[in-house]
Amino acid sequence: MSKLVGAAIFGQSGGPSSVINSSAAGVFIEALKHSDVITNVYGAAHGIKGILDEQFYDIGQEDMHELELLRNTPSSALGSVRYKLKAADVDDTDYKRLLEVFKKYNIRYFFYNGGNDSMDTCNKVSKYMQQSGYECRVIGVPKTIDNDLFGTDHCPGYGSAAKYIATSIMELKLDATVYNTGMVCVLEVMGRNAGWLTAAAQLATYKGLGADLIYLPETPFDVDEFLASVKDVCAKNNNKCMVVVSEGIKNAEGKYVGEFVASKTDLFGHAQLGGVGQMLADIIKNELGVKVRAIEFSLLQRCAAHLASKVDVDEAFASGAYAVQAAVAGETDKMVILQRDYSAKEYKCVPALMDVALAANTEKKIPQEWILPAGKGLTQEYIDYALPLIQGDSKAPLEDGLPRFAHLKKVLVK
Amino acid sequence: MSKLVGAAIFGQSGGPSSVINSSAAGVFIEALKHSDVITNVYGAAHGIKGILDEQFYDIGQEDMHELELLRNTPSSALGSVRYKLKAADVDDTDYKRLLEVFKKYNIRYFFYNGGNDSMDTCNKVSKYMQQSGYECRVIGVPKTIDNDLFGTDHCPGYGSAAKYIATSIMELKLDATVYNTGMVCVLEVMGRNAGWLTAAAQLATYKGLGADLIYLPETPFDVDEFLASVKDVCAKNNNKCMVVVSEGIKNAEGKYVGEFVASKTDLFGHAQLGGVGQMLADIIKNELGVKVRAIEFSLLQRCAAHLASKVDVDEAFASGAYAVQAAVAGETDKMVILQRDYSAKEYKCVPALMDVALAANTEKKIPQEWILPAGKGLTQEYIDYALPLIQGDSKAPLEDGLPRFAHLKKVLVK
Repeated sequence: MSKLVGAAIFGQSGGPSSVINSSAAGVFIEALKHSDVITNVYGAAHGIKGILDEQFYDIGQEDMHELELLRNTPSSALGSVRYKLKAADVDDTDYKRLLEVFKKYNIRYFFYNGGNDSMDTCNKVSKYMQQSGYECRVIGVPKTIDNDLFGTDHCPGYGSAAKYIATSIMELKLDATVYNTGMVCVLEVMGRNAGWLTAAAQLATYKGLGADLIYLPETPFDVDEFLASVKDVCAKNNNKCMVVVSEGIKNAEGKYVGEFVASKTDLFGHAQLGGVGQMLADIIKNELGVKVRAIEFSLLQRCAAHLASKVDVDEAFASGAYAVQAAVAGETDKMVILQRDYSAKEYKCVPALMDVALAANTEKKIPQEWILPAGKGLTQEYIDYALPLIQGDSKAPLEDGLPRFAHLKKVLVK
Repeated sequence: MSKLVGAAIFGQSGGPSSVINSSAAGVFIEALKHSDVITNVYGAAHGIKGILDEQFYDIGQEDMHELELLRNTPSSALGSVRYKLKAADVDDTDYKRLLEVFKKYNIRYFFYNGGNDSMDTCNKVSKYMQQSGYECRVIGVPKTIDNDLFGTDHCPGYGSAAKYIATSIMELKLDATVYNTGMVCVLEVMGRNAGWLTAAAQLATYKGLGADLIYLPETPFDVDEFLASVKDVCAKNNNKCMVVVSEGIKNAEGKYVGEFVASKTDLFGHAQLGGVGQMLADIIKNELGVKVRAIEFSLLQRCAAHLASKVDVDEAFASGAYAVQAAVAGETDKMVILQRDYSAKEYKCVPALMDVALAANTEKKIPQEWILPAGKGLTQEYIDYALPLIQGDSKAPLEDGLPRFAHLKKVLVK
């Protein structure tokens, strides 16, 4: 391979997670070790937008201790963005600008952390630079709590979100069943198209403190069948029932529950105001006359770094470090994947590479054969898949009893 | 003092918390040590209701290891209840029944864990037993996340809930400010009359990752002033603003915001459906046209044992153990309080006793002089008061990456 000397830039994109900064730490700490080829290490403010706007930070000026603290600091320390590049043959304005900035700062390494859309960005930038004859090594670093990236066994971010959801459901189960009166809880979990996050409820079930019913977007949702199932659980269980639903559940025609319920009856004309959990709670209350409570995990599920999985934090870091090692070794146009050895007795998973084009704009859903009908949850296959991903604790040190997150200086490059 | 030989019974009452079971562990483990006077240790199913119904468990048959695990198991392991005893001179049916059950099982020690209402129960039961000439030592064990019990420096349960709220706000602050576009977050915290839980947001502010505006029920809430403050923060801060409100905020006439806003305009006719946080988020969206998100901590804030404060867990246990020691030593008709030595340099707080009648049906609110006007939070006095209460971590051991909570056998006494 040829030795490529120049600056490296890293950006964070899409919805944040508990461990996206752990990948940042992996990229930064590894890149700073390669000063023979990586002349400068930059962090883009708000992802690709920060490169277009020439807003990026000089990571070389940060304290190593603070970079280490990034491992356990949630969200995106550099700022994130949702920005989709147009195809270069439709409008190449952004690409020309990127090339201009890359040349100006001699940026030869581009690392981008995100999900499907971000891998699309990686892919487009990589292809454009190749066509322009500008040598730049491009590696995508996977990230999404949704766990829907194609090609990787799982995504950094998923294990921690799953651990948060499963732990919280166990705690809520103890709380919501405390009185000898009835109570139906409807918990709403993120995930518009893939049910991986909602499936984490099954981990709580596995430990004996789970939901009674679980509804994923992978299976068509039927309100009447849903009500019958809730009624059935209530009848058997002193009117106590815990339901976990994905925000993305749809009916057989592919319409979101919010849409078809609102159109079906005026009763739920407030549909747009609450989430699907509140809506289903209202329906249960009206139809079954029991006490209900809707709880939405909302942003909490993607930023609860205090409950991060050690496996996840370590893998996120390793993915970032591996991206740098691979680029320095001559790789480009790739995404880091986590490759799991299912023949090993113990959980064994290592970073590897895949063509980034394969990950761009695809979605990995839960295998249908893992999903039980009528809200009855998931099979043991899911437990075997997910349980190793939530092992161990890894959190920020305490200062005054509260987490000490990283404080970056964020010195803008002039 | 006279030596009183008989059984002891313990009950849990009111809304559960992360540490109510730690007090149970304190009572049980201590009571089992005093087998010379305490012949049997019983746990009432669903508080006072379990005694009336003769539904209680023989704690002597539980494994000591499981009783130890109660320290870090949230909610009420015995089941809780909301049941207010009528005054004995109005209707003494329940009292007669209690006396009958106490006599039948020779119950001579009654420990009751809860807030204001539960202390009212303690007080009434104690007085009735005295009047009936039945010797029974009655000690209340304080518990409430609301921290509104009179006479004690603070209540077991508060520190852990405050730690959860402050930590979650810090994490949400990092998450909600991640894009370079505007976003107003409205977080709703429990507390109908006292703002202690909402005040915990100030701890996050103290660590530099707090709310921009905090609204407590102790101060009259004005929607116009609120909107002006949000607008002001948005103008200075790229349309980003984080607001924390108590569910119990009221206007100058003492009306809950949900009531007066709904009556003011048809626009908010759905008031009863969402909480006050969602309602204020809707108002901000309509009036200021910015992106908003309402997040309700809901039951999560009172059961998140994975983020319990070690100080709180230990004090909850100590309060339970102290109640037993005091009763065995001859005390009755008392509530355990936590007495803090404000002259000590380091935090120093020990259990002590107070007449239970003083705690019954009173409420301790935040001192007005600690509250800054116009949502600007709380003074340093609050930080000095609250910070020591959230120190240290104490959580259940992990099993399969998830909390291993106590499994009680719950053998019913025949």
